[in-house]
Amino acid sequence: MSLLLIPTGWHVEDWRVRFQALLPEMPVVTPDEPFDRRAVHYVASWKHPEGALAGLPNLAAIFSLGAGVDHLFADARLPDVPLARVVDPDLTTRMSEYVVMHCLMLLRQQARYARQQRDVVWDDDRHQPAARSVRVGVLGLGELGLDAARKLAVMGFDVAGWSRSPKALDGLPTFAGTEDMPAFLARTDILVSLLPLTPQTRGVIDAALLAGLAQDGRLGGPFIVNAGRGGLQVEADILAALESGVLKGAALDVFETEPLPPDSPLWRHPAVTVTPHNAAMSAPDAVAGLIAAQIRRLQAGLPLEHQVDPARGY
Amino acid sequence: MSLLLIPTGWHVEDWRVRFQALLPEMPVVTPDEPFDRRAVHYVASWKHPEGALAGLPNLAAIFSLGAGVDHLFADARLPDVPLARVVDPDLTTRMSEYVVMHCLMLLRQQARYARQQRDVVWDDDRHQPAARSVRVGVLGLGELGLDAARKLAVMGFDVAGWSRSPKALDGLPTFAGTEDMPAFLARTDILVSLLPLTPQTRGVIDAALLAGLAQDGRLGGPFIVNAGRGGLQVEADILAALESGVLKGAALDVFETEPLPPDSPLWRHPAVTVTPHNAAMSAPDAVAGLIAAQIRRLQAGLPLEHQVDPARGY
Repeated sequence: MSLLLIPTGWHVEDWRVRFQALLPEMPVVTPDEPFDRRAVHYVASWKHPEGALAGLPNLAAIFSLGAGVDHLFADARLPDVPLARVVDPDLTTRMSEYVVMHCLMLLRQQARYARQQRDVVWDDDRHQPAARSVRVGVLGLGELGLDAARKLAVMGFDVAGWSRSPKALDGLPTFAGTEDMPAFLARTDILVSLLPLTPQTRGVIDAALLAGLAQDGRLGGPFIVNAGRGGLQVEADILAALESGVLKGAALDVFETEPLPPDSPLWRHPAVTVTPHNAAMSAPDAVAGLIAAQIRRLQAGLPLEHQVDPARGY
Repeated sequence: MSLLLIPTGWHVEDWRVRFQALLPEMPVVTPDEPFDRRAVHYVASWKHPEGALAGLPNLAAIFSLGAGVDHLFADARLPDVPLARVVDPDLTTRMSEYVVMHCLMLLRQQARYARQQRDVVWDDDRHQPAARSVRVGVLGLGELGLDAARKLAVMGFDVAGWSRSPKALDGLPTFAGTEDMPAFLARTDILVSLLPLTPQTRGVIDAALLAGLAQDGRLGGPFIVNAGRGGLQVEADILAALESGVLKGAALDVFETEPLPPDSPLWRHPAVTVTPHNAAMSAPDAVAGLIAAQIRRLQAGLPLEHQVDPARGY
């Protein structure tokens, strides 16, 4: 009985060492060495190649090494076995760090003051809006969206949330479903996207959505913060909205193509902040521990936690 | 009975209009016009010139137009009448925005990622420490320090506080007095200074204090965030500590001389963030309302709130 480990783009030995220490009785194998396909009962994957999990007759569960599972569904030959997400409190905390930091940087015009420092200019317009006069809309109210929304509210922002199906958010206003989307966007000065990537959400941040954001806010135009998945956004529409003035700026951690190609105009756009998809990293120690604990649960006959619903895609 | 208004460096008419609307029965006078010195019962001052409040025989109270009162005590000829601070929840929220934003920017290496964007570099070291592994020490536990400490704790930081006399901080560790200072500094990776400026605190951020900060932290060296008063810091010592490596970086909103002189090396130091003393602005609407309410209290025979203790200096 073995664990097949495929951490594409990451250092495989970092992960192997951790899993082997946590599951000393279970061989940890990788695709770049010969292994017995019949012995593989578990897979821990990040962006495995299409078909890499086919022909594993005793596979019992697949674990995503990161918060998202869209990379699993990208495999048309994915085996029909239970899939589990990682729900890592550490990762949630990190995502909220990113979201709160970027919302504060937009509120406080940090890019302007960084330019002024570079130019040795001491200037202040004294028209800083208060956080409570800036409306943040959190798109997606899963573990990540709920935590970010709560922390943004603690910082004083006027927060609302949108989710596919109705959800409660500590008494803050919430919107649900397609029919509520226009009202949600119309009261949003900073849109924070923390949706999972599914066939339904792909390309949701497009020209129509951007045109629906509040134009009457205290920040002089709407902003977006996308820390979810690059596939949620249509970058040509974001650039066009920045050009036309429909959108005032964007903080993007994720992109349609990653790494973001050097010729993307997003890199050099003065109103865009680019980070290299590191808003919320999976800390290998935490993730390996959570997956090893789930494997022990299955071995003990207990049900899998945080199982993904293939129909919803998350 | 009149209110003498001296908002040095600010637009006087902005303030006069507000006070006049709030106190329609009371003439609002300024030093650049003739006025009856015997009629002045109240003063609202920001950095009035030395002696400007002498010779006001019926003066009953002096109000600071900003959060600090050190500018009042800078006047050796300050009349011996009750002085009051402004305690503005809005200003407290803004200060915490600044503090939390800069602590998150240090935690998340925002300066590094801004440089990488400028250089079109997609790179991440995946060794991002968790907020809970970074120890923030809040120096000063008044209204501002308590609020900042609580919000930093919500964001996940490992927060402790120091104050002159012992204070409780929602169960977080606190340190008090000179004797606790070494232990407080030794567990501090990011020092947040929110002390009032008094003869006791002037120059407290000096070589000795900086040398006492933690050198073993997860950020690779200690940082300071000073959003209190410029007089708290010895800039030559900060620059020397950055040079020697005792200090890894600083976010400074306040300076020994303001505006910060163009030839100050702080402007161009790659490890220093400079903002033009705007961490927490007094919003004129809020401040004028709070002072007008205090004047009405005094007129009604009620005691002054938020009175300053001249012996403590805050």
